[in-house]
Amino acid sequence: MGAKVFVLNGPNLNLLGLREPEVYGRDTLEDIGRACAAKARGLGLEVEFRQSNHEGVLVDWVHEAREEAQGLVINAGGYSHTSVALRDAVLTLPPQVVFVEVHLSNLFKRESFRHHSYLSDVALGLICGLGAQGYILALEAIAARLGARAEGSSA
Amino acid sequence: MGAKVFVLNGPNLNLLGLREPEVYGRDTLEDIGRACAAKARGLGLEVEFRQSNHEGVLVDWVHEAREEAQGLVINAGGYSHTSVALRDAVLTLPPQVVFVEVHLSNLFKRESFRHHSYLSDVALGLICGLGAQGYILALEAIAARLGARAEGSSA
Amino acid sequence: MGAKVFVLNGPNLNLLGLREPEVYGRDTLEDIGRACAAKARGLGLEVEFRQSNHEGVLVDWVHEAREEAQGLVINAGGYSHTSVALRDAVLTLPPQVVFVEVHLSNLFKRESFRHHSYLSDVALGLICGLGAQGYILALEAIAARLGARAEGSSA
Amino acid sequence: MGAKVFVLNGPNLNLLGLREPEVYGRDTLEDIGRACAAKARGLGLEVEFRQSNHEGVLVDWVHEAREEAQGLVINAGGYSHTSVALRDAVLTLPPQVVFVEVHLSNLFKRESFRHHSYLSDVALGLICGLGAQGYILALEAIAARLGARAEGSSA
Amino acid sequence: MGAKVFVLNGPNLNLLGLREPEVYGRDTLEDIGRACAAKARGLGLEVEFRQSNHEGVLVDWVHEAREEAQGLVINAGGYSHTSVALRDAVLTLPPQVVFVEVHLSNLFKRESFRHHSYLSDVALGLICGLGAQGYILALEAIAARLGARAEGSSA
Amino acid sequence: MGAKVFVLNGPNLNLLGLREPEVYGRDTLEDIGRACAAKARGLGLEVEFRQSNHEGVLVDWVHEAREEAQGLVINAGGYSHTSVALRDAVLTLPPQVVFVEVHLSNLFKRESFRHHSYLSDVALGLICGLGAQGYILALEAIAARLGARAEGSSA
Amino acid sequence: MGAKVFVLNGPNLNLLGLREPEVYGRDTLEDIGRACAAKARGLGLEVEFRQSNHEGVLVDWVHEAREEAQGLVINAGGYSHTSVALRDAVLTLPPQVVFVEVHLSNLFKRESFRHHSYLSDVALGLICGLGAQGYILALEAIAARLGARAEGSSA
Amino acid sequence: MGAKVFVLNGPNLNLLGLREPEVYGRDTLEDIGRACAAKARGLGLEVEFRQSNHEGVLVDWVHEAREEAQGLVINAGGYSHTSVALRDAVLTLPPQVVFVEVHLSNLFKRESFRHHSYLSDVALGLICGLGAQGYILALEAIAARLGARAEGSSA
Amino acid sequence: MGAKVFVLNGPNLNLLGLREPEVYGRDTLEDIGRACAAKARGLGLEVEFRQSNHEGVLVDWVHEAREEAQGLVINAGGYSHTSVALRDAVLTLPPQVVFVEVHLSNLFKRESFRHHSYLSDVALGLICGLGAQGYILALEAIAARLGARAEGSSA
Amino acid sequence: MGAKVFVLNGPNLNLLGLREPEVYGRDTLEDIGRACAAKARGLGLEVEFRQSNHEGVLVDWVHEAREEAQGLVINAGGYSHTSVALRDAVLTLPPQVVFVEVHLSNLFKRESFRHHSYLSDVALGLICGLGAQGYILALEAIAARLGARAEGSSA
Amino acid sequence: MGAKVFVLNGPNLNLLGLREPEVYGRDTLEDIGRACAAKARGLGLEVEFRQSNHEGVLVDWVHEAREEAQGLVINAGGYSHTSVALRDAVLTLPPQVVFVEVHLSNLFKRESFRHHSYLSDVALGLICGLGAQGYILALEAIAARLGARAEGSSA
Amino acid sequence: MGAKVFVLNGPNLNLLGLREPEVYGRDTLEDIGRACAAKARGLGLEVEFRQSNHEGVLVDWVHEAREEAQGLVINAGGYSHTSVALRDAVLTLPPQVVFVEVHLSNLFKRESFRHHSYLSDVALGLICGLGAQGYILALEAIAARLGARAEGSSA
Repeated sequence: MGAKVFVLNGPNLNLLGLREPEVYGRDTLEDIGRACAAKARGLGLEVEFRQSNHEGVLVDWVHEAREEAQGLVINAGGYSHTSVALRDAVLTLPPQVVFVEVHLSNLFKRESFRHHSYLSDVALGLICGLGAQGYILALEAIAARLGARAEGSSA
Repeated sequence: MGAKVFVLNGPNLNLLGLREPEVYGRDTLEDIGRACAAKARGLGLEVEFRQSNHEGVLVDWVHEAREEAQGLVINAGGYSHTSVALRDAVLTLPPQVVFVEVHLSNLFKRESFRHHSYLSDVALGLICGLGAQGYILALEAIAARLGARAEGSSA
Repeated sequence: MGAKVFVLNGPNLNLLGLREPEVYGRDTLEDIGRACAAKARGLGLEVEFRQSNHEGVLVDWVHEAREEAQGLVINAGGYSHTSVALRDAVLTLPPQVVFVEVHLSNLFKRESFRHHSYLSDVALGLICGLGAQGYILALEAIAARLGARAEGSSA
Repeated sequence: MGAKVFVLNGPNLNLLGLREPEVYGRDTLEDIGRACAAKARGLGLEVEFRQSNHEGVLVDWVHEAREEAQGLVINAGGYSHTSVALRDAVLTLPPQVVFVEVHLSNLFKRESFRHHSYLSDVALGLICGLGAQGYILALEAIAARLGARAEGSSA
Repeated sequence: MGAKVFVLNGPNLNLLGLREPEVYGRDTLEDIGRACAAKARGLGLEVEFRQSNHEGVLVDWVHEAREEAQGLVINAGGYSHTSVALRDAVLTLPPQVVFVEVHLSNLFKRESFRHHSYLSDVALGLICGLGAQGYILALEAIAARLGARAEGSSA
Repeated sequence: MGAKVFVLNGPNLNLLGLREPEVYGRDTLEDIGRACAAKARGLGLEVEFRQSNHEGVLVDWVHEAREEAQGLVINAGGYSHTSVALRDAVLTLPPQVVFVEVHLSNLFKRESFRHHSYLSDVALGLICGLGAQGYILALEAIAARLGARAEGSSA
Repeated sequence: MGAKVFVLNGPNLNLLGLREPEVYGRDTLEDIGRACAAKARGLGLEVEFRQSNHEGVLVDWVHEAREEAQGLVINAGGYSHTSVALRDAVLTLPPQVVFVEVHLSNLFKRESFRHHSYLSDVALGLICGLGAQGYILALEAIAARLGARAEGSSA
Repeated sequence: MGAKVFVLNGPNLNLLGLREPEVYGRDTLEDIGRACAAKARGLGLEVEFRQSNHEGVLVDWVHEAREEAQGLVINAGGYSHTSVALRDAVLTLPPQVVFVEVHLSNLFKRESFRHHSYLSDVALGLICGLGAQGYILALEAIAARLGARAEGSSA
Repeated sequence: MGAKVFVLNGPNLNLLGLREPEVYGRDTLEDIGRACAAKARGLGLEVEFRQSNHEGVLVDWVHEAREEAQGLVINAGGYSHTSVALRDAVLTLPPQVVFVEVHLSNLFKRESFRHHSYLSDVALGLICGLGAQGYILALEAIAARLGARAEGSSA
Repeated sequence: MGAKVFVLNGPNLNLLGLREPEVYGRDTLEDIGRACAAKARGLGLEVEFRQSNHEGVLVDWVHEAREEAQGLVINAGGYSHTSVALRDAVLTLPPQVVFVEVHLSNLFKRESFRHHSYLSDVALGLICGLGAQGYILALEAIAARLGARAEGSSA
Repeated sequence: MGAKVFVLNGPNLNLLGLREPEVYGRDTLEDIGRACAAKARGLGLEVEFRQSNHEGVLVDWVHEAREEAQGLVINAGGYSHTSVALRDAVLTLPPQVVFVEVHLSNLFKRESFRHHSYLSDVALGLICGLGAQGYILALEAIAARLGARAEGSSA
Repeated sequence: MGAKVFVLNGPNLNLLGLREPEVYGRDTLEDIGRACAAKARGLGLEVEFRQSNHEGVLVDWVHEAREEAQGLVINAGGYSHTSVALRDAVLTLPPQVVFVEVHLSNLFKRESFRHHSYLSDVALGLICGLGAQGYILALEAIAARLGARAEGSSA
């Protein structure tokens, strides 16, 4: 079986696609989860896809990822801008876990308090503004890094 | 039965009236809940009155209000000043839900970090400094808006 | 006769209802004055309702209120954000005068220079964003405070 | 006849001594005016002592002082911190008019918005925190400057 | 008769030309008024030229302009930098009134508190630093806009 | 039995000693808990030692301490810098509860957002940078205060 | 032949009129150039009208203007807000060169980073928000200054 | 032939791979260009890949892209943080051009002046920190958008 | 014998009158000391007049004043703006010691770092900009306070 | 003989216990010195306890500590917030000297300029708000570090 | 032949000595170039002396210096304060290239936006305010470093 | 005998070369003093080389330099960033004294509080980051200025 990637979603993302579909599209978070699982299979990865409105639960899950995951995608929603606790949780990850931050919308088009994320400078990289596709691209980036590392170590 | 209004209370408000009654008055949160229920009956509204110390629970309840409520009163306590997650939850409400922010104390007499609330600019309006009566006035404001709208739609 | 409440309105509020009625509603300041008078009668209060575009005149009226009023409602319009003189006038009021600040619109949805008012931290409380009803709610809050005090002193 | 000195007082100073005498003392503005007149006579000066709550009136009086006064004392109260108009009026004074800014209280013990005055850097000097005596000291300073100049010019 | 343009002047501008003529030139405000009237006649406009040191009076005059004027030129002097009330008055103008802000001096060469005007972003445009000619150019700009509109509507 | 002291630990502290032991040392949070219990016995105190990644749970525990504890040690981890709710919970403690803030690392050597804690100015004092020994020193400080008070009251 | 005036246009102004004509109007930069030339002839001036997207080229042209021009109009577009080099070039102009800064749009209605221009305080004056007419008015202002000077020197 | 995508690279990127290969990798900009061309072919796109150290040249190329491209990828290097001119050039693009900002490194791990880019809020989205793969992911995102639009328009 | 007043002078004041007499006047610090002594005799006070360039010496002298003085005048020169140690020394004075801060020049006409003094808000009042006469006025203010107190206590 | 620890006290600490004993307690600095000496003996350390009001003397003593001490405790009083010189002196200490910063009061309850100390981030750790006991706890912390190191090196 | 040193000059420096010679001196940039060449010969160095008004050209030249130079002197003029691109170019230099920043004038006597240079913290050192001699001193500093290194490597 | 130059060194510079020689080099301050003396002889100057850790002593020495020196070099160490007193001392120097500020390290590579020096804008120029050679270059700069002046005056 391939490497495991946790895809963690923060507050309010459970409502995706349920409100104003003409604006945000009809994709639900479940749809994104399914697309991630499909993409992951194609890349030889296994995805663990979760959502919570609770900051502490997200911290718990990052701790769980320490033991079980080789990759991590987080869309922390509103907690991105306020949670030092989540940042610190990410900082406990071993260096070999590849972590990419994703946001559906372009944060820089929105209120100024969304221009700073406590996760960005502790992530490998950031993808924002590309909608649900951002998750897929993040999985590709993780697969490439894990693949390169595997090749390197097998050499 | 009349419209339903959620009245949500944030951290530490469960202790109201239990400490320093000579300062904060002897009204408990339960007393305020009872006064809200009585006022609501007089206005033809139904009140759902809750308190939690957990940010995530408050987010969950706002999601619940999306389905069930026509009005919303939030006194988010300390989360008012730090929770983008709660703000985002409120932003998922359909536009017909009337939301009023309430604070017992006058935030502008206190520390400067209490002068900013992430909820104020996404609320219809703000009432602060008027103690428990602030909740009652918020219910009146909601009733007036819902009433005007009902008249408008029946016209 | 009941307690007297001054309701003072600042610059440009004389134009209320005369411009863009489809946006701001058709209520004129005169209409609000009449509604305040009616509500006051119901609460056993007497209202003195005035408007001026002149900062100095508003200061003079607050001085007059020192002698004659037990309650005060101020919607200082643009002077809210710039007038230390008006703040100082309010600070000369005896502590038994109940003062509530009112704004028709939600200041926090507007330009950042409207997020600070020199009156807020010297008022008992603030009501904003609830339109003309804000004046009515302020009168209720004043009546409740004066009533509670009267009961207390008669005990 | 000696030189004329305008002593101009800004908003709320008309209430001096009338409120909380146990805190602010029993001196009224009228008392200070009489003390200034007496001191002025001793110094060979003539005092014009006025008060207004209106920013525009204060500007008008400074214009009047351009024609008639050799000295100027201003306690602009709350306008000190907000009035560019009053500053600009003072800037129109001919250089030979000696202008001293006075405040009864020590501004630096109060709210931070009182730490800046638009008049301070266009005055000869500032006296604050010394109560009513501050006016008397300002008159002495003006007399000394006018005297030195008179001696210089007569030399 | 042509369109009417109010030209309103703020505090201290009444002293123009009376002080330091070698610096500010010998043009008085009256001279500027006469030049404006002459230019206006050439452009088919009628000018109403006024000055006041009182913020409230300027607000009143903008209200008057709502009813009577098609164009507005304001040199608000020191109130430019402090008056939200005057800004709000301008915001009550109907959109067809063409408003241009003028300053005699180049504000950006002066103290930093003069770099911001509460009127600039609610004006059509700004002309500063060009002395009395700035008024004339503003009248040309207003005439051009009113003319283009007249042509458009007559088309 | 002696006074009870709650020792509360915030997010990510459960991982102490489990990661990078060559950097952070091999002491687990459990080890610190045991050392605290031993020290407490020597000082005649009883320790309640807990950890949670959930802000709301920490608030609940402070409420519990209101009823049961005479002393409180908090290492709130990342919530130190963001939680007004936790600060407000501490503010509900009766004044006789002795509260000391502890951090393992020296916050002032780290990112600037860690230089401010919402708990510091509502604590008796702060100990940081001294590692696990910081907890022991905090217990000594609490014991000294409680002892001094006991002597004072028995006198 | 009359005095020569350089009219220099910065980045992106070459696209004027080519995009969104319903928004920005159908005037191209070439049209503005022709209007300037015509106006100049009427004023007895000669215009050199240029555009470049390159900051260094604009600096070179200001150097050229040092030798050849008596007047200068610059609309530096985006470089207005970022180019100290261009400011320094302008500062090398001999004092008799009359320089007016022009912008088509009202910068103060736009993003805050456009509220500051490195050219404003080294220009004689600024005209903004008046569209293509701003160039024409700037030429009038320059002609008036050069004319007054010529009269003065011939006197 | 498929849609054309401009991939524009700013200052210093020509040196990629030539310096400190053990740090930045051995990929040269030419290598990235070849990888982009290959990926583009797979996605049915045509790539125009360029680099310049000159801000003005980059502005010129964006103008060229207005006419010829359906997609745009920009890694503006150091100009990202300082060039309003480049931002304005991007703002002239017709809305159907899909623009993605890419950076090789994670800007948020670097100096604070790199945390702001003048391009981010006018781009569809941002990808940073993922090295050369960022370009490939940007092409995928553009292809997906163009594909969805094509399907939509053909429907 | 009358009350004793320490008059303490900070760094560089020893050079007064020795440099640029045409600018700063010919009064040396010794002259000011003599004038203070003379004035003090007239007011029934005794003056201890000192100067040091050493912050620590000034702190020592304030400690000495705790024991021996009823009044204190400090012109701390450059230490006014940087010395928390001197502020803390002043804070150890018993409340009956009357302390007035003096500066020869008007600090608000000078560099912005001179607009804040660590002594101003812990002084009774401030006199600045009135030259050597400022010392004399400060002695008068101290004499008046001590006199009023003496009368009060003898009553 | 054990390791030597310098305990250095800054300005105004010589007055400890001599003023307002009902507020600050009756402990003099001498008492603290004696308590430190006693504690040190118990820990096998030798204490050198000094105080000065002179910044330069404190710098000299830190230099002396470079040669003679294994531990250092500094309560720099007001110099904590202003002395880069003292910070630099500490930075010259060899890494094996254990340095702990102590303050009697909780700096975070006081003026904001006391929230920053130039020593905190170059110390091992900080203890504040615990009164004289803070010195004792600092000695314990130093003893523990020196002891652990001794064990390590003897192993 | 000795080591090669590039001396690069930024915008407007080509005008040196041509304007206001009584202020800036009569030295032209050519004179400075000749003096540098002479000095270089004395130090056994070879100088490549250039100037451009174009940021991109300066970037290109720094790239060229990567290949050819052992030393670098840059006076980037106005680009010093705005060019991240130039900073990044310098960062691509191999560590053995000795780079010194030079400015003719003392930047700290000028506008505050000149107090920051993007080059200072990536240079070995900075010389400013010493006029043309600054270039000569920079060459001496480079020669000394290269000489010391040469001696070291030959040792 | 030639002109005299004071070379003054501030706090902690006495330790130069004594600590971490592998980092800071083996040059002691005494070595630098000897090199300065040798260089001075070559330039026909006489050097007075001193060091103190005491701010007040440095102020005294600058006063002494007023009488005796024609040139001044100051490396004020940590006092550079905090001492207004030292700045004021330098401001008392007669204009013919040539003053150059020197720092061994490049301040702009260090903590941000070292980026501002109170001496820089009152010095002729600044040399930093060039180690001990900075002193030698400063002497050259002073010699050149004094020489040019001598030539000028002898002419």
